[in-house]
Amino acid sequence: MSLRMYDLAGADPEVRFSPYCWRVRMACAHKGLELEAIAWRFSDKEIIAASGQGAVPVLIDGAHILHDSWKIAVDLDQRYPERPVLIEGEQGRALASFARHFAQTAISAVAFKAVILDIYNNIHEKDRAYFRKSREERIGKSLESFAISEDEARVQLRIALSPLRALLQEQSFINGAKPAWADYCVFGSFMWMRNVSSKTFLSEDDPVFAWRERMLDLHHGMARQSKRAV
Amino acid sequence: MSLRMYDLAGADPEVRFSPYCWRVRMACAHKGLELEAIAWRFSDKEIIAASGQGAVPVLIDGAHILHDSWKIAVDLDQRYPERPVLIEGEQGRALASFARHFAQTAISAVAFKAVILDIYNNIHEKDRAYFRKSREERIGKSLESFAISEDEARVQLRIALSPLRALLQEQSFINGAKPAWADYCVFGSFMWMRNVSSKTFLSEDDPVFAWRERMLDLHHGMARQSKRAV
Repeated sequence: MSLRMYDLAGADPEVRFSPYCWRVRMACAHKGLELEAIAWRFSDKEIIAASGQGAVPVLIDGAHILHDSWKIAVDLDQRYPERPVLIEGEQGRALASFARHFAQTAISAVAFKAVILDIYNNIHEKDRAYFRKSREERIGKSLESFAISEDEARVQLRIALSPLRALLQEQSFINGAKPAWADYCVFGSFMWMRNVSSKTFLSEDDPVFAWRERMLDLHHGMARQSKRAV
Repeated sequence: MSLRMYDLAGADPEVRFSPYCWRVRMACAHKGLELEAIAWRFSDKEIIAASGQGAVPVLIDGAHILHDSWKIAVDLDQRYPERPVLIEGEQGRALASFARHFAQTAISAVAFKAVILDIYNNIHEKDRAYFRKSREERIGKSLESFAISEDEARVQLRIALSPLRALLQEQSFINGAKPAWADYCVFGSFMWMRNVSSKTFLSEDDPVFAWRERMLDLHHGMARQSKRAV
């Protein structure tokens, strides 16, 4: 039986851009687990109520209901130890934590400002009032005044990605010669930008761009084939 | 027999501030290996010629001569596998690489601009012409016009340290509950700033500050007891 995941969708149900859901999609593919990703909208809180909270990804594996991409990764390794590992040992856990915080504070923090209006424009109409209200409360200003330009985002990302760029000049994946959870974790932020926005944030001569290309090709080009909003 | 390391010293031979040498000092302490750190100046190239290159750290372990902090760490784990490990497994290696590039591009890149004149003022007189010439060739401008103010450095570091700050809000050390190579790697950049400059770059309420305090206390307060230039 395949796993099922509630996955944030845009107005177009085929457009999937949640960075956290992308981590789980890639992680399941890594472990060779079939995953059915069910379109979910911000307003569909009651559908995932069984998970005890209101955000996706929510993964359903038989009677097992899980949320939070990090917990899902740890759980997948525990439940499927015979399949390729995502996070291994104490230092693997530290790598995953570092990658997660790097993705969040260095990449997604900039990306959020860069694509916030794209998100607003591409989510389902029924989600817009909720999205605007919850995000404006969090950021303390209007979506419009929080947003930054494509050029400004490129400049900020260029600086923020410096450690990743240096690392990827030396090795093919964050995890080393082959990808694992740390890669999927960071890649989620890039899939967020890719699938919700038509803007381009990386130069083609950037080693991070080349890594993203490799990631798009993984698991039979699963991410590359995914639909973009625009 | 104790290990010996050539260690960059200031005009005051007791002042040691090389970030790479600090990594090795901490790594040896981690493994419970006694280390004699011998004062070395930039002009003493011939003293370390047997290592086949011109930079410290150079570690001498019996007939074994090693340079490059990363290679030294890998070698120490191989030569002393029964002692506490520094880098473990494929993901531990990836963690170490990520931490090294983070230290270099996010921390030391800012720190270099912040303390470059402190370095110039605190190195041995015989090293000054070499230091100015080699560094000005590398940076393409005078040391004076490359330097940034303490305030500017604090602002830049505050941003650059975001991933580390978020990580250290969750766990005591980069490596997890206990420190290992990734911590020593990043800590080296902070010891560079601490021992060559009287400026303060971290706020006391920063989780990175609290981590640095824990690092200063490790191994019987070895780093805390080290002499500062000013």
